[in-house]
Amino acid sequence: MKTLDKPVPPGGTIGIIGGGQLGRMMALAASRLGLNALIYSDLPDVPAFHVTPLQLIAPYDDRATLSALANVCHAVTFEFENIPAEAMAFLAERVPVRPNPAALATTQDRFAEKSFVAALGLKTAPFFEVSSAEQAREAFGKLTGEGILKTRRLGYDGKGQMRAVSADDAGVAFAALGGAPCILEGFVEFSFEASVVAARGADGCFAAYDPPENVHEHHILRRSTVPGRLTPAQVDEAKAIARTIADALEYVGVLAVELFVAKDGGLIVNEIAPRVHNSGHWTIEACACSQFEQHIRAVAGWPLGNPTRHADVVMENIIGDEVRAWESLARSGALHLYGKKEAKPGRKMGHVTRLAPRSR
Amino acid sequence: MKTLDKPVPPGGTIGIIGGGQLGRMMALAASRLGLNALIYSDLPDVPAFHVTPLQLIAPYDDRATLSALANVCHAVTFEFENIPAEAMAFLAERVPVRPNPAALATTQDRFAEKSFVAALGLKTAPFFEVSSAEQAREAFGKLTGEGILKTRRLGYDGKGQMRAVSADDAGVAFAALGGAPCILEGFVEFSFEASVVAARGADGCFAAYDPPENVHEHHILRRSTVPGRLTPAQVDEAKAIARTIADALEYVGVLAVELFVAKDGGLIVNEIAPRVHNSGHWTIEACACSQFEQHIRAVAGWPLGNPTRHADVVMENIIGDEVRAWESLARSGALHLYGKKEAKPGRKMGHVTRLAPRSR
Repeated sequence: MKTLDKPVPPGGTIGIIGGGQLGRMMALAASRLGLNALIYSDLPDVPAFHVTPLQLIAPYDDRATLSALANVCHAVTFEFENIPAEAMAFLAERVPVRPNPAALATTQDRFAEKSFVAALGLKTAPFFEVSSAEQAREAFGKLTGEGILKTRRLGYDGKGQMRAVSADDAGVAFAALGGAPCILEGFVEFSFEASVVAARGADGCFAAYDPPENVHEHHILRRSTVPGRLTPAQVDEAKAIARTIADALEYVGVLAVELFVAKDGGLIVNEIAPRVHNSGHWTIEACACSQFEQHIRAVAGWPLGNPTRHADVVMENIIGDEVRAWESLARSGALHLYGKKEAKPGRKMGHVTRLAPRSR
Repeated sequence: MKTLDKPVPPGGTIGIIGGGQLGRMMALAASRLGLNALIYSDLPDVPAFHVTPLQLIAPYDDRATLSALANVCHAVTFEFENIPAEAMAFLAERVPVRPNPAALATTQDRFAEKSFVAALGLKTAPFFEVSSAEQAREAFGKLTGEGILKTRRLGYDGKGQMRAVSADDAGVAFAALGGAPCILEGFVEFSFEASVVAARGADGCFAAYDPPENVHEHHILRRSTVPGRLTPAQVDEAKAIARTIADALEYVGVLAVELFVAKDGGLIVNEIAPRVHNSGHWTIEACACSQFEQHIRAVAGWPLGNPTRHADVVMENIIGDEVRAWESLARSGALHLYGKKEAKPGRKMGHVTRLAPRSR
């Protein structure tokens, strides 16, 4: 595996796999630092193509294009976790890839991820591997209440998951999810949801942002609020959880840990995202170094930036048709639009960030 | 002259004439808003070309390229004031140009600008039109102390100006400046320098940022500090001056007014920059809406953003070889590098912004 011996110098090129809004905002952050961003997407006309002249379009397993990417870039990262493992391995032999492919592999698979988290002594929902309808029924029997059956791979924004309130339900859900390898998770009763976005540098340095309280609607993030209802002790614990995970993965870059805040105050790890995260978009305005810049700094082997928050902040997603109200949204706060042409239902079109003087 | 009947919609294209760091940061701001940025430069490989695929390269008076620009863009703006007047007139017939060409013409000429400012009842240094060495000597006689002879056009960062401590000096300076039309200004004894960066929207709305205290070295901005030594009354007066000027010019976009703070506390207008300004770079981190986004909002006919400052801030330029220390600069604050390949003496290579909790 290729590693980075020294920092990518100003004028160097960072390859970003994926051309959605996360890749777009990473590219914008790279530009601030005087680094060039190259976007590799399997689709034409993606949001990130508007912000850099350096573009590759090919399937993600196209070896000629992966080779070209490796030749042109000083380091490569990605905006989404579902890159084929073989492509990642091929690439990692040729150019430093950050975060490392093993960390990606762990977080690509819900069962591997939950097992990893549990092995670190962190709390998770009860979970069981499910490879057949029969196993789904059996596993349900071990839960104390409802469950959620999720495919081990390729889920996001509530896709690839179904609720189960009985053993039969669980069996039916397994079939409905196409018979793909699954994980059955026990339903967690929580007070509210939170997340922690943090970075680990190539030198092992660690920097966490204040954890937002998050509200989801229809499985899609609606709003992140900082500070939220987490107590100072929970804030510290959330950051410590992120650090434990990042260290164990020998992670380099920004990662997000989604948390349930249980009624007894405990923090339960729901999911790890090996990338910048929607619940960290507020850092663009509220911190001197945004999660996007922080990620690029880590990937490039630069010193991490300062994650101090200097304002209270609410970030709200703009979903589907809501974008039609762009003019009043622009009046109400810092508006970010992602350059997507079509406003499909459930599609994240942008977000708006509103600041207030820091209260605590 | 073409005007903008309705706001440029998301997905629309803003043309930016000039490809330096100001154009680059404008383009980055346009991208945040979901607008495309097209850069028109007379040189290849300029900083702004790294942040957008939409690029035109031609002399600034090339009519075919100006036509193409007008055809592709919903609105056009510029990052520097020395665009040929005929090119601007040609363009303004074909596409909305903001700020308007008349405002540009006034601020392109130091004598026209000072006359305009004085006519508004604002304070300036004493100044005289100078078209011959003889006039230079005569004008010097009307000053009470030293003077500075400046070419009426094309000066920046101290270029095109010479100090004069005697009438003979003034005559010699006129010849040394190539016999170009000049203005002789009386030297102002000031406590410190300041500036005010403000925006006027297409609807006449006005928004000013807190005025920084500025320090220049060798005629180049070294540092902007907010809050500086201006009193609350001076802060208000600085913003009022910017508003008076912006209204009188029917200005749309961001402008900067450079000020001398006299020993008696009076604010003396030194210069108007009809564009985003180096002394406003701190707004990127310290305000939800940066000067760059504010300018793009105004140019696009969008509502102006909130100029509230939510941190104390010092912005320091990185000049010439200083950029070699990029790694320690990246450690010390929010680093911006402009993607310039060669670090010539006096060349602005980037800047670094350092935040502290807001004190007042």
